[in-house]
Amino acid sequence: MILEGIMTTLGPEGSLNVAPMGPKVDAGMTRLLLRPFQTSTTYANLRRTGQGVFHVTDDVELLAAAAIGTLEHDPPTIAATAIEGRILTGCCRWYALRVREIDDRQPRTEIVAEVVDQGFRREFFGFNRAKHAVLEAAILATRVHLLSADHLHAELSRLRPLVQKTGGPPEERAFAMVERHIDARLGEDATGSSDA
Amino acid sequence: MILEGIMTTLGPEGSLNVAPMGPKVDAGMTRLLLRPFQTSTTYANLRRTGQGVFHVTDDVELLAAAAIGTLEHDPPTIAATAIEGRILTGCCRWYALRVREIDDRQPRTEIVAEVVDQGFRREFFGFNRAKHAVLEAAILATRVHLLSADHLHAELSRLRPLVQKTGGPPEERAFAMVERHIDARLGEDATGSSDA
Repeated sequence: MILEGIMTTLGPEGSLNVAPMGPKVDAGMTRLLLRPFQTSTTYANLRRTGQGVFHVTDDVELLAAAAIGTLEHDPPTIAATAIEGRILTGCCRWYALRVREIDDRQPRTEIVAEVVDQGFRREFFGFNRAKHAVLEAAILATRVHLLSADHLHAELSRLRPLVQKTGGPPEERAFAMVERHIDARLGEDATGSSDA
Repeated sequence: MILEGIMTTLGPEGSLNVAPMGPKVDAGMTRLLLRPFQTSTTYANLRRTGQGVFHVTDDVELLAAAAIGTLEHDPPTIAATAIEGRILTGCCRWYALRVREIDDRQPRTEIVAEVVDQGFRREFFGFNRAKHAVLEAAILATRVHLLSADHLHAELSRLRPLVQKTGGPPEERAFAMVERHIDARLGEDATGSSDA
């Protein structure tokens, strides 16, 4: 099973990195298979520190902002105790990880991480089509360079009514943020500035 | 916010009815606004008994089976104590409800229900695209009579890879079950037998 959530890792100066991550998990959540791109900060941090925290959350505003790289401030965190790492205080559940194996012969490195500590902070909301629509839009936003403008607009048009009909203000804000990001990226591509 | 889950209600002889439900919920989960169709068993049971149990769950096999009406056996339940009702033992969280207001001037009755008891049984998995794809397919299955065969097939083709890439055996079984149901319903419509 793939579980979509958020990783926190620490940079060389202890700076917080917050990134979406969809690891493959086992039923007992004892080991996670992470597949970060080698160009990502998460990969660099995991490689250097061998530690990180994976979070299950239904906070799609944070998830979307992390996906499109528009987090203006570090979200609230507390220190992990079993590892050097930071736990998102707003998460539902967290899993402190130690890297056990790294296979970086492919562009998406395969990292096996062991859960060495975990905790519960609040309940996951449950199935909500608006939250999921934001997640899907955020995934699209990370793939703008691979997808046509027509496809992106069609998908956003399909997802938007779900947000309006089944979400609340946080889902609407998050979806609008992702839409603005995709429009801006498409604008860059149209003028060729992204390749300049 | 709309929260997609499962309602259990009791029939005149105490028979268990299990049905998907997407109530509007408040932040504290103190009151739910249910909107069952007046033709549904859930509506009839809520009207007669004024009681029911709403469940948050990530069990998409049960959710899909309830949506398409193919539950062969009652799922495991235990008795609620605050009301006359049954709690799904496999759920994540449950909310025992008492009906406070019924407005049935519209085809989809608006029922305000108060949460009079609640409980936690296990954690909701979190965001998983396969589970959500099954939920979307199950919603499609309840709308076969309103949608074109082309649209249904296109949506199933869009959802299927998500199940294969991010789900496990339960998600694959649930999705295949919904696909078979939709195909069978489309077959009935094509031969006109559903209107016979």
